[in-house]
Amino acid sequence: MTFSPSQLEHPIVQAPMGGGPSTPVLAAAVSEAGGLGFLAAGYIAPAAVREDLAAVRAFTGRAFGVNLFAPPGTPADPAAVRRYAATLRDEGELGEPRWDDDRYAAKLALLAEERVPVVSFTFGCPAAAEVEALHAAGTAVWLTVTTPAEAREAAGAGADALVVQGVEAGGHRGSFDDAAPGEIGLLALLALVRDAVELPLVAAGGIATGAGVAAVLAAGASAAQIGSAFMLAEEAATLPAHREALRSREGTALTRAFTGRTARGLVNRFLSEHGDDAPSAYPEVAHLTAPLRAQARERDDADAMNLWAGQAHSLAREAPAAELVRRFATEAREALAEAARRL
Amino acid sequence: MTFSPSQLEHPIVQAPMGGGPSTPVLAAAVSEAGGLGFLAAGYIAPAAVREDLAAVRAFTGRAFGVNLFAPPGTPADPAAVRRYAATLRDEGELGEPRWDDDRYAAKLALLAEERVPVVSFTFGCPAAAEVEALHAAGTAVWLTVTTPAEAREAAGAGADALVVQGVEAGGHRGSFDDAAPGEIGLLALLALVRDAVELPLVAAGGIATGAGVAAVLAAGASAAQIGSAFMLAEEAATLPAHREALRSREGTALTRAFTGRTARGLVNRFLSEHGDDAPSAYPEVAHLTAPLRAQARERDDADAMNLWAGQAHSLAREAPAAELVRRFATEAREALAEAARRL
Repeated sequence: MTFSPSQLEHPIVQAPMGGGPSTPVLAAAVSEAGGLGFLAAGYIAPAAVREDLAAVRAFTGRAFGVNLFAPPGTPADPAAVRRYAATLRDEGELGEPRWDDDRYAAKLALLAEERVPVVSFTFGCPAAAEVEALHAAGTAVWLTVTTPAEAREAAGAGADALVVQGVEAGGHRGSFDDAAPGEIGLLALLALVRDAVELPLVAAGGIATGAGVAAVLAAGASAAQIGSAFMLAEEAATLPAHREALRSREGTALTRAFTGRTARGLVNRFLSEHGDDAPSAYPEVAHLTAPLRAQARERDDADAMNLWAGQAHSLAREAPAAELVRRFATEAREALAEAARRL
Repeated sequence: MTFSPSQLEHPIVQAPMGGGPSTPVLAAAVSEAGGLGFLAAGYIAPAAVREDLAAVRAFTGRAFGVNLFAPPGTPADPAAVRRYAATLRDEGELGEPRWDDDRYAAKLALLAEERVPVVSFTFGCPAAAEVEALHAAGTAVWLTVTTPAEAREAAGAGADALVVQGVEAGGHRGSFDDAAPGEIGLLALLALVRDAVELPLVAAGGIATGAGVAAVLAAGASAAQIGSAFMLAEEAATLPAHREALRSREGTALTRAFTGRTARGLVNRFLSEHGDDAPSAYPEVAHLTAPLRAQARERDDADAMNLWAGQAHSLAREAPAAELVRRFATEAREALAEAARRL
């Protein structure tokens, strides 16, 4: 038996937040507190993933997860990428818009070799042989879905659980096809997916309070995956400018401006000016804008970097991660008791 | 004390569904079963509202509600409407794209005179004097909101409860400003609004099961407002072509194509072909397309009429409304008990 979300002491999964916020110490703190911590293995080299795994295991003997992006499909139309690059001329030095597979196979082999308790995938289904290799390593395979059709496909691919991602979620949409994204609100999506498949569900998107955790459990999920509301945790490596933006900015929007793949972030200048021009071209656009984003981080410019955030980001609180986990669990119990009195 | 959603035997509000589905017999059946039935008073003449009120009261002595559209603001740019009309040339005979206020004042006076238990508003806040007149008649004033900012404004306007409408909802978005709509998923929106105001909340959008009802109660709502999942009720006057589309079509989208105001409907030919061209111009565009929609209804053409539906519409079941109310309540209790066991 692989690890199931229903085994968690507290039904709280810390979302893998690529590009910075997720750290081994955050993942370990969440797991130690009775939730499930997650590392984000997208964008980074296999050697860095190996180091992160060792670091988590130095802090905790408990189960944790690692998220991997499913391999991108075919390269995008180079002309579309060039047209977008032309609109970014005034932003600064651009990167080479190359297509690559983010060393998917090497990282997958590493995760199986390391017998990671849970591996979740975003952007599609791994191949049957890959799922089998993970199962042989004792690893639970969780697939991210945004529509009932994706849920059925994921169940057919051998998933042990589904991460059901509502349109509220911050960061990249997990849609299998970026050109036909699921944009369904979490509560409706949980009902539709619950109706379509029998697997355990982990609900993701806009959950930032214990009441939200209670709500998704009532809607049939086994656990809640929380991202933005861990971004102000002491252990998160969220940039100062990003932390400040989470507190001070309000609106979020879906955009391909930063990576060529739809993601939700706080509205800022770069998103507003370039969102309409950006093609569906991942990872080419991510490489194209990488130097711009690096420069923005260096000069602390919140208007030129990607500020991933979910729709309930303003409810994020600063605290140690373990305290957040315990608070979510306590509030969830209170919320359920209150709802039961109402009924 | 005006009527509060927490007084309901079952925390189920039947959404007002304008343009057909809502009938006095549906509203009365829901109220008789322990929920709260609703009439839709938008689009129709005061005399018709008066008849509907008499019909509900012939069937039930229990509380019910009536929904009124807040008065539209200033007329839209006539040139934008003319441009849209030009794109509709091949669809058939168009109506005159006139601006009117849907006889708002006359209907409001009627509702106060009739001492309707609950009046809900969509598209904005009534004036302070109007809220006072309704309160003086013993009427509870519920305002529809789609953002935390609208919730604060509605609380300031004297609302007794808020209908919190997530982006999942079918039919018109209740946004105060169609040019700056709230597109927040219900669960995130409930958390944000719960944090912003103290009023009782009625959660709306994508709720089609008892588990969904349980979820919004856990999230802090006093009741769930359900639309699409009542559209196949025996007592609903949903058109046969619309009923069939609810069962057979999958995807929904937000569009201004039919009325000039953003609404969610099943994707069909008219929506796909004209959605991108339609301006924000309500009620002008509604009058413009009225003959097209009437003709589509006559010839049973689901590809040319507005097929309002929420994101969980495929879970709607055919049954008498009272049975649906009881089923939602029973399932909600079971869902809460199950979630409590998990925690």
